[in-house]
Amino acid sequence: MNVGFIGFGEVASTLSSGLLSNGVNVSTCLEGRSKRTIYMAKKSGVNILDDFVELARTSDILISAVTPSTAVAVAKKLGKYSKGIYVDINNVSPSTVNEALLLVENKRTVDAAIIGSVEKNGCDVQIIACGDAAKDFSILNNHGLNIKLMGAEIGHCSQIKIMRSSYTKGVSAILWETISGAYEMGIDEEVLKIIAETEGPQFEKLAHSRLISSFLHSKRRYEEMGELKKLLSDNKMLNDIIMVSATENRFKDICMKNKKIQKENDEYGQYDSYKDIFYALKNIK
Amino acid sequence: MNVGFIGFGEVASTLSSGLLSNGVNVSTCLEGRSKRTIYMAKKSGVNILDDFVELARTSDILISAVTPSTAVAVAKKLGKYSKGIYVDINNVSPSTVNEALLLVENKRTVDAAIIGSVEKNGCDVQIIACGDAAKDFSILNNHGLNIKLMGAEIGHCSQIKIMRSSYTKGVSAILWETISGAYEMGIDEEVLKIIAETEGPQFEKLAHSRLISSFLHSKRRYEEMGELKKLLSDNKMLNDIIMVSATENRFKDICMKNKKIQKENDEYGQYDSYKDIFYALKNIK
Repeated sequence: MNVGFIGFGEVASTLSSGLLSNGVNVSTCLEGRSKRTIYMAKKSGVNILDDFVELARTSDILISAVTPSTAVAVAKKLGKYSKGIYVDINNVSPSTVNEALLLVENKRTVDAAIIGSVEKNGCDVQIIACGDAAKDFSILNNHGLNIKLMGAEIGHCSQIKIMRSSYTKGVSAILWETISGAYEMGIDEEVLKIIAETEGPQFEKLAHSRLISSFLHSKRRYEEMGELKKLLSDNKMLNDIIMVSATENRFKDICMKNKKIQKENDEYGQYDSYKDIFYALKNIK
Repeated sequence: MNVGFIGFGEVASTLSSGLLSNGVNVSTCLEGRSKRTIYMAKKSGVNILDDFVELARTSDILISAVTPSTAVAVAKKLGKYSKGIYVDINNVSPSTVNEALLLVENKRTVDAAIIGSVEKNGCDVQIIACGDAAKDFSILNNHGLNIKLMGAEIGHCSQIKIMRSSYTKGVSAILWETISGAYEMGIDEEVLKIIAETEGPQFEKLAHSRLISSFLHSKRRYEEMGELKKLLSDNKMLNDIIMVSATENRFKDICMKNKKIQKENDEYGQYDSYKDIFYALKNIK
């Protein structure tokens, strides 16, 4: 069995490690990818192919795990070469996933979504999947993945996932603004502790990791909010949004701040504490 | 020992029941109060005095538990008559609580804040308190309350509490927008379930009660966001807020919707499910 990943970020690298250790042959292609992606792919031990067309032609299951803004472009480029099942696992709106999957000529398509943190759960993270080929995709449950079937209608998993993101990414944006404000006033630790008194003992640790990942993945989250707005627009609900737009704007702002700090340092993961980020941001003001 | 409550909403009625069952003499005054307050006070069994000046003069501990917008006005009216300790337990900014407590002539003042839900915790709910008279206020720990001392500086408890509200009320606003959107699309139950998979088993129940209380208490939450903005303005941080303004606007919007539905029905607590609220809102659109 050959599984191919288009894009090799956190999701692909985590799922790959599960598949590799369960005897699956995993490949990707690094043509035009970022330094970080190249580093992660080489470290993982997957096969590295010379071009994407070869990847599409040789994969029994081809998984698109890119950024929301490139999901359609990737399907346009590779959909006609996919010989097996094509799985879109990106956090995009139902209309985007439909647009992407209609470009897959053999029609063996799956709309899939990751529910929860791959960082925390590894390849046990829940994947929900729908579409005619979802059952065939779920064969990977015999090889270390945790796929739950959700019916035949393409778009349903994306819709559920993007509405979940409306909540979880909104909460991260709220947390960012609250704790960065409290940090400025020198009471961030007290505020985290007092929130933990009602939100539970895991809150402080979770908040710490949410703050750091909000900073590192701000661009993707900003794009996800764009996909959420597309879903709401398709349902004629754009006239009643306030928090969604604010979350989008907050991540756009974090993204710009990120660029100012990260531009001379392409290495990710150098932040042990959210305090390092707020300290760095204070110094560029 | 005489404890007097100015204002008799959820906080006062909950704390009263604990104090009454621990042998404390509790009083309030209903001059100019709403139908709901009158109903709650009469049900609770506290003494009902004819006027607020008498309440201030006869209380060993006088607790201001009103809405954020009236905290100062109440202190202005009654601060000169307070013969015992005056406790401001309102969710207001440090500058507002300072303004209010400076109006208490005998200077025996406490800045206090409720941490968590009185509905869930009853009179065991944590109260943080600071100010010179905070230690004297904490004598009520012998009579059923749960007061934690936080130092002498007036404003510190309010600052911690209002920053906590930045998070908790923001989360409620995000939840409202997410689930009302999902309800419109007919997937609210699925979305709540999928969020619960990562947020824990208590999430669904908590979300349910947060949605209903966001609707019922939208005016107070809107005012709290105004107090938060005052704190951020005092710290020259208004130029970097996005989520705070959005939360304020969301609660302002819910407040207006609330008025449209509730105007012919002054009884609170008639909603068993958030679905009843969204259904009613759909029908006034």
